[in-house]
Amino acid sequence: MSLLTFGSAAYDSLETPFGRRDHSLGGSGVYASFAASFFTRPRLVSVVGGDWNPEYTELLRGRGVDVEGLEVRPSAKTMFWRGVYPVDMNHCETLVTETNVLDGYVPVVPESYKDSSCVFLGNISPLVAAALLSEIDKPRLVVADTMNYYIATMRSELLELLRHIDGLILNEDEAKMLAETNFTLEAARKILKTGPRFVVVKRGEYGAFWMSDREFYATPSYPLETVVDPTGAGDAFAGAMMGVLAESGDESPASVKKALLYATVVSSLNIEGFSLERFRNVRREEIEERVAKFREMLV
Amino acid sequence: MSLLTFGSAAYDSLETPFGRRDHSLGGSGVYASFAASFFTRPRLVSVVGGDWNPEYTELLRGRGVDVEGLEVRPSAKTMFWRGVYPVDMNHCETLVTETNVLDGYVPVVPESYKDSSCVFLGNISPLVAAALLSEIDKPRLVVADTMNYYIATMRSELLELLRHIDGLILNEDEAKMLAETNFTLEAARKILKTGPRFVVVKRGEYGAFWMSDREFYATPSYPLETVVDPTGAGDAFAGAMMGVLAESGDESPASVKKALLYATVVSSLNIEGFSLERFRNVRREEIEERVAKFREMLV
Repeated sequence: MSLLTFGSAAYDSLETPFGRRDHSLGGSGVYASFAASFFTRPRLVSVVGGDWNPEYTELLRGRGVDVEGLEVRPSAKTMFWRGVYPVDMNHCETLVTETNVLDGYVPVVPESYKDSSCVFLGNISPLVAAALLSEIDKPRLVVADTMNYYIATMRSELLELLRHIDGLILNEDEAKMLAETNFTLEAARKILKTGPRFVVVKRGEYGAFWMSDREFYATPSYPLETVVDPTGAGDAFAGAMMGVLAESGDESPASVKKALLYATVVSSLNIEGFSLERFRNVRREEIEERVAKFREMLV
Repeated sequence: MSLLTFGSAAYDSLETPFGRRDHSLGGSGVYASFAASFFTRPRLVSVVGGDWNPEYTELLRGRGVDVEGLEVRPSAKTMFWRGVYPVDMNHCETLVTETNVLDGYVPVVPESYKDSSCVFLGNISPLVAAALLSEIDKPRLVVADTMNYYIATMRSELLELLRHIDGLILNEDEAKMLAETNFTLEAARKILKTGPRFVVVKRGEYGAFWMSDREFYATPSYPLETVVDPTGAGDAFAGAMMGVLAESGDESPASVKKALLYATVVSSLNIEGFSLERFRNVRREEIEERVAKFREMLV
């Protein structure tokens, strides 16, 4: 199935215990489409400013990402984010978010994208996500990501979006926040009542699970003793998951399990380097090797 | 292989959001031997006072636990513990611990136990655990549990014990505390350098993993939307794990994975009821049913 990935393309300045990077490539749409590109030929919708480095567009194109929907607005600046990861790496402190070109953004969907059967709405305002979704003819599978910021400031818009999607993917803390409970499984169960057929909860180093009314699938994380830069881990997870689902063409238990397994592995490869430094050199065979290794670790 | 399980037999008074119980059956040795009894015929070493209810001895015997090593000291009182679980159930607040009959306790090992090939040293003072271990002829597999209290107050004695065991099983927070690091995998790696060939880290609702120099196996937890009483979850996990390993007779990857899988399931059955109320009625077929269900959930 054809996959449209929608999300930000950004410049990230960040610091982790392993070093720092300034204005490196980032953004939920970039990480997600890159991760999906190992499994399918994703169509990217995003927007950048005149300061965008065209080499990054070529990097995505080189991975097989369809960049027709990557809009460049010369008069604006690309989104910018600055963050610091403290020693424990589990939480990131955002120091600066400059939305820039995303201010007042209305996504432009190329005609050639409108028949997309899978849509991934990356971490972006629920209103903007809804605007994009309304441009797609008859999507069969729509999955959205979200984050604490939108849960806190745009709850009603987010709840409206949830009525129009098939799956929601989010972090454990975000799930609890959205469902207003301290229990993760209860949170997932409550989210299912707001519209989505399934919810995928990402638990960082503890893995992830997929829950629907009648199904539950869980995976541990891939054991990494050194995490260099967790930025984009969740977007890469979601992108790879969508890529596998688009490639499989169904939501059978086998396809869902495969999606969780590959998402875990692809995400683990991403966080072994800053920005996309490690990720951009990953080959599909490397993914298969790690998947094989991971399978041996699972009970 | 024959399995000796060593740990406390106690009266527990506890309160969870689902209710309360006074002087109910508890203790690490009780939970562990009960859990092991689904897979093997464990030999229990423990001590109780004159206030011990002989029906509890019969309960264990009825499950196939060899209770020859359950010493009754009529002049002393059974260990007593009182705790409260707050709403999130993730941490327990201990209100009272009366060690009673365990004060100055030197374990007595029946002659018929001295050829035990597997030994599980439940959550008990490392000095008492070492004393017991010295009574066993030639154990092939010795695994110890420990807890924050002994890590804080008897670190050197614990480190001495670690030089004489094959495996350590403990909670994630305890592993970090023992290894003095905030990173769980690093903690496990450091613990391996103190003596044990393998370490098993229990992560509560996030599952568990087994790490040795060259191996890593991980399992998610069984998804329970209602946990009635988490008391004994870790002991039941360890006991079932030891029972499966004793039944398997080796530490092949298949045996270790099976041990983690069954330990997860047995532990999940235990915490669905207060004390051993649910556990005492569990049948092996019920375990197999849940194992089959759990396998379908794993990627």
